[in-house]
Formats: sequence, C-alpha cells, structure tokens
Amino acid sequence: MLIQELTRQASLDLLARTRLGRLACAQGTQPYVVPFYFVYDDGFLYSFSTVGQKIEWMRANPLVCVEADEVVSPEQWMSVIVFGRYEELLDTSEYQGVRAFAHSLLKRHAVWWEPGYAETILHDRQRPLVPVFYRIHGRQITGLRAIPDQPVTPPDTRLSMTDSGEDGWLQSLLRHVRGKPKRKQSRALRG
Amino acid sequence: MLIQELTRQASLDLLARTRLGRLACAQGTQPYVVPFYFVYDDGFLYSFSTVGQKIEWMRANPLVCVEADEVVSPEQWMSVIVFGRYEELLDTSEYQGVRAFAHSLLKRHAVWWEPGYAETILHDRQRPLVPVFYRIHGRQITGLRAIPDQPVTPPDTRLSMTDSGEDGWLQSLLRHVRGKPKRKQSRALRG
Repeated sequence: MLIQELTRQASLDLLARTRLGRLACAQGTQPYVVPFYFVYDDGFLYSFSTVGQKIEWMRANPLVCVEADEVVSPEQWMSVIVFGRYEELLDTSEYQGVRAFAHSLLKRHAVWWEPGYAETILHDRQRPLVPVFYRIHGRQITGLRAIPDQPVTPPDTRLSMTDSGEDGWLQSLLRHVRGKPKRKQSRALRG
Repeated sequence: MLIQELTRQASLDLLARTRLGRLACAQGTQPYVVPFYFVYDDGFLYSFSTVGQKIEWMRANPLVCVEADEVVSPEQWMSVIVFGRYEELLDTSEYQGVRAFAHSLLKRHAVWWEPGYAETILHDRQRPLVPVFYRIHGRQITGLRAIPDQPVTPPDTRLSMTDSGEDGWLQSLLRHVRGKPKRKQSRALRG
C-alpha cells in the first residue's frame, strides 16, 4: 500500500462529490461524533438538522472536525479531514441570503433532511420542530489516499508480546518500505 | 423512514461485525475524527496504531467517541455511538495478557495494521516505529436504525427563507408522522 497526500484540489473534489460524512464536536473534554449529510461549496459544508445534542454542543463550542472518505478496502481509500468552525445560519436579516443559498443547495437532495428530522421525532415528540441550518467553515482541509501496492507479508503469528515477534514484522515491513523510492513528506495532521 | 432505537444486543452485534469506524478525540476544545479499524470484544474496541496525533491526544485526554455504521441509503442505515475511554496496552508485565489477547484478535486481519503504520511512514520517516496497542472501554453504547417507510413529500422549492416555505414542508411532514402509531421513545444521545 502506498499512502499519498491528496492535493488541496483533490481533497475539495472529494468533499464536493461526497454527501455522507462524520461530524465531531466536543463538550468540555468529551468528543462526540455522528454521521451527517452535507453539501460542500466554496470552503463551506452546508447542512441542516433539528435542535439536539450536536447542535447544542456546537453552539457552545463551535470548533468541529469533519471526516469524509471513500473506502474501497483497507488498502484502497481516500480520506479528507476538515478542521472547521460551526456557524449557525440564523433566521435573521443578516443571514437571509446565505440561508436561501443553503436551502437551494440542500433542497436538491430532499432526503437529506430526514435523518436530522426523524431523530427529533424519535427522541422528543413534544419538542418543537425547529429547523437549524448551519455551515462548517473549513479552516484546514487535508486528505490522504492509499493505493494498493504489492502484497506485504502479514505479521507473524507469535502470541507472546515479550519476545521480538511484534517488532519482527514491523521491522520486516520497514525494510520493505525503505527499499522503495522516497516519496514526498507530508505535514498532514494525521496519526 | 422509521427510526428505531437498536437494542443493546443489536448495537453490540453491529460493533462485532464492523471493522471500520470513526474515532473522535479532543485536545482542549478542538475535536478530531479519523477513520480507524478495530475489533470489538466484550465491551472493548481493540485497535493498533503508531504514535501520532490521535495517540498523543488520547494519551492527554482519554475521553473518546466512536461511531460505526452500516449505511445503505439515507433512508436505510444503522449507526452505533460508543462513548468510551482510551486505554493504552502498555508493554509491561501488567498488560502482558491483554496485549497478547489484543494481538490475537488483530492479527486475524493482517491488513489492519497497514493504515496506522503507513501514516507514520508518510509523515515522519525518521520517527521510530513504535507500535501502540490500545483499547476503548465502551462506557455507553447506543444505536439507531432507519428503515424505509413510505415516500414522504420533499420540501417545497420556495427560495425565500422569510416566508413560511421552510416551515411549510416541516409542518406537512409533522402531520404525516403524527398520523402514525406512536413508537417507543428513545433516550439515545443523538441529535
């Protein structure tokens, strides 16, 4: 398997053609991650929900992280990470234009609003149905791609952790990889 | 679309048959989410990586959240959320047994170690290859399932956000859903 950093454009392209992502927010030191549907446009991920845990958490702490990917297999995948900031598109005159724009993006895919909506139905039938339009401003967008290379010897089957079995296959792989031409170093925030 | 809460057993079953999940951690108020491979066994998600950003963040703050799902379409999916705690399986006598157990689980799927490994290769060739075995202790495990119901009228195509168009389709849906038999309330932490 070869790992390559995606160009910025390739990362944006993945976001543009992807609808399902995972949105992480945090309250205090507790992170929370849920699947969500979005539409990417020009640096922003637009989405829509009803008031609930993730909206309440993002209102209190707008720092979020979004992950979107295309996984064919453990050896063939692309993954994009967006560090961003939550911005609620309030129903005020200030936001009128951007809310209309978000609506126009989101309505092209009518089914998208269903999960966010349906969760409210499930969780609290008495809660008023308040639609929340929001967008994530992508402050840092990076991506990685894995492509199959050649078969790599799997780890050996030694059971003991105290002998050299664990390091053995890592060192074996290390030699294998070091024999290849060097590729561009990455500064992507992964690991 | 009908949304139902998964039973605890159904949530655990999904974790047991799923390999790819998304792992969220947080540093200060900044969440971070990445795809990762894991093996679930008896309340714990076992995984393996090399030292990098997510390991460093989880060492500093062990509170994590894992999401795993099976998505067929926006109307047909299952999603499980695990609030848990990171525990590093240190190479010490205390952890020898559990490390051996983790290794035995993980080695059945040899390809799994490749993404974690390969990222280190990409990001820092000079960094020593330190394998990190860890597990997530699932403190709270909940799941939801969506199943297709009957076609629901999509939102109308009004562009203005200041008229009643936005609420119109929500209210229309609300009437639609209220006409159905009541289903069990959920206390799952979603939204």
